[in-house]
Amino acid sequence: MTMRYASYISPAGARTWGVVEGDTVYDLGPSGLNLAANLGDAVRGGVFGNVQSEQYSSAPAAAEAEITFLPPVTEPGKIICIGVNYRSHQEETGKVEQKAPTVFTRFADTQMGHLAPALMPASTTQYDYEGEMALVISKDAWHVSKEDAFDYVAGYGAYNDFSVRDWQRNASQWIPGKNFPGTGAFGPYLVPASDIEDLDSMVLETRVNGEVRQKAALGDLYFSIPELIEYVTGFTKLSAGDVIVTGTPGGVGLFMEPSGLLSDGDVVEVEVSGLGVLRNTVQRCE
Amino acid sequence: MTMRYASYISPAGARTWGVVEGDTVYDLGPSGLNLAANLGDAVRGGVFGNVQSEQYSSAPAAAEAEITFLPPVTEPGKIICIGVNYRSHQEETGKVEQKAPTVFTRFADTQMGHLAPALMPASTTQYDYEGEMALVISKDAWHVSKEDAFDYVAGYGAYNDFSVRDWQRNASQWIPGKNFPGTGAFGPYLVPASDIEDLDSMVLETRVNGEVRQKAALGDLYFSIPELIEYVTGFTKLSAGDVIVTGTPGGVGLFMEPSGLLSDGDVVEVEVSGLGVLRNTVQRCE
Repeated sequence: MTMRYASYISPAGARTWGVVEGDTVYDLGPSGLNLAANLGDAVRGGVFGNVQSEQYSSAPAAAEAEITFLPPVTEPGKIICIGVNYRSHQEETGKVEQKAPTVFTRFADTQMGHLAPALMPASTTQYDYEGEMALVISKDAWHVSKEDAFDYVAGYGAYNDFSVRDWQRNASQWIPGKNFPGTGAFGPYLVPASDIEDLDSMVLETRVNGEVRQKAALGDLYFSIPELIEYVTGFTKLSAGDVIVTGTPGGVGLFMEPSGLLSDGDVVEVEVSGLGVLRNTVQRCE
Repeated sequence: MTMRYASYISPAGARTWGVVEGDTVYDLGPSGLNLAANLGDAVRGGVFGNVQSEQYSSAPAAAEAEITFLPPVTEPGKIICIGVNYRSHQEETGKVEQKAPTVFTRFADTQMGHLAPALMPASTTQYDYEGEMALVISKDAWHVSKEDAFDYVAGYGAYNDFSVRDWQRNASQWIPGKNFPGTGAFGPYLVPASDIEDLDSMVLETRVNGEVRQKAALGDLYFSIPELIEYVTGFTKLSAGDVIVTGTPGGVGLFMEPSGLLSDGDVVEVEVSGLGVLRNTVQRCE
């Protein structure tokens, strides 16, 4: 069975985390069983992925509709994003010769959870979606070989790397367009890696107001998850709770004819098989 | 008079910070007067730049030669680096059409202090220097206009943005080549902005084994400090202690004929008028 973990604000206003079963959220954090202070600590302490239903069945519970979702890991030390990592996106961007992964970063303060508004800055005319699959690192990782890489993955979740295209393309480096507040949507859940049976066959789909814009199998990743972990830990030390966002397939709004860029009020969903549906509504900032 | 602040490990092994006068370091941190826990907190609390000699003249002191320098801000939340921001470097890289600043980031764990080894990874054949001037932000900064920008600068220091060129150029985004451990040299000192009389006339010079490789006045910056602060705070919220590294002039090793790239044992110095000499020796990692 797939266990879904979430970080959230409880109906009483407490920042906590827990497991979601059906429509019920069981509180395993500070306002509940207190198995760890937050989900990042639960990963670090080995609690994440090892909670049994007998443990939480009597925990304080809430209806899923009553909680406010946070990003599963609320304070990751590092968020590593991978660009142009599906052939279909390489073709639409013209970046077909990739000899190594394209790596950029997000600050933790860009992130928000499921159902939070996707903030479209007043200073852009090119706000876009990028549906992706994100993984969370389980332990210190440095110079990890691709053969060992899956030992360092705690779990998986859906991600929307909302992109401010004009700021991204003002200069050669993309950081500005990827680091506005309220643009890194993560969730709703983090699912333990041990609960995933066949990663490659899982399907990533992005919808805007219900229309399918992106669709790919995770097996279509150009650089595989083990290859990404080997490359990234070849230059930076990762720790439990760090996030790697693995890239987006073809179908982003910028390259659609006519343009598929986002407007105030658009509802964007990223669904990954087994990981749930991440939904955010675009909100124009004044 | 210019006051020089430093973060360091004391001869007794304590992590602390203080002011340097002549060859003497006065301890204002936890093992001394304890005016703040660290220099970042001293910036946040308004202590930095406001210490008088009557206050510290009786503080525990050490000889500068006996301390181990740390980066002036040891745990910045954000390190924002600016690329190709001198005309001379734009020309050698061929990037002469800059309509906006080029922005990339470093993780805090890439930084080291004055006299620490500059770590050259085993996986590179292209290790390079980039002498720069860095500034530290004094308070929360978001959507700051260039007219107000200097109100948000706490102080200045020298920086060497050691670059792993092959990893930087493996793909379009530079992050890997800029985020190896032991490559972001910062210091020796942080000098309060209020002590600087004429920023534009200050000279930045980089030397390798005593040979001058880079030389420019800070007034040669293509995007000025106020313009950089306006641009950066247009997409991300900065806080006290955050660092902006303002860019390197022409003369990096990669573009020299013959190549001026670094080798094990090379001594690299970055000197900025009034900010001191930042010296690091290249150490090849096994």
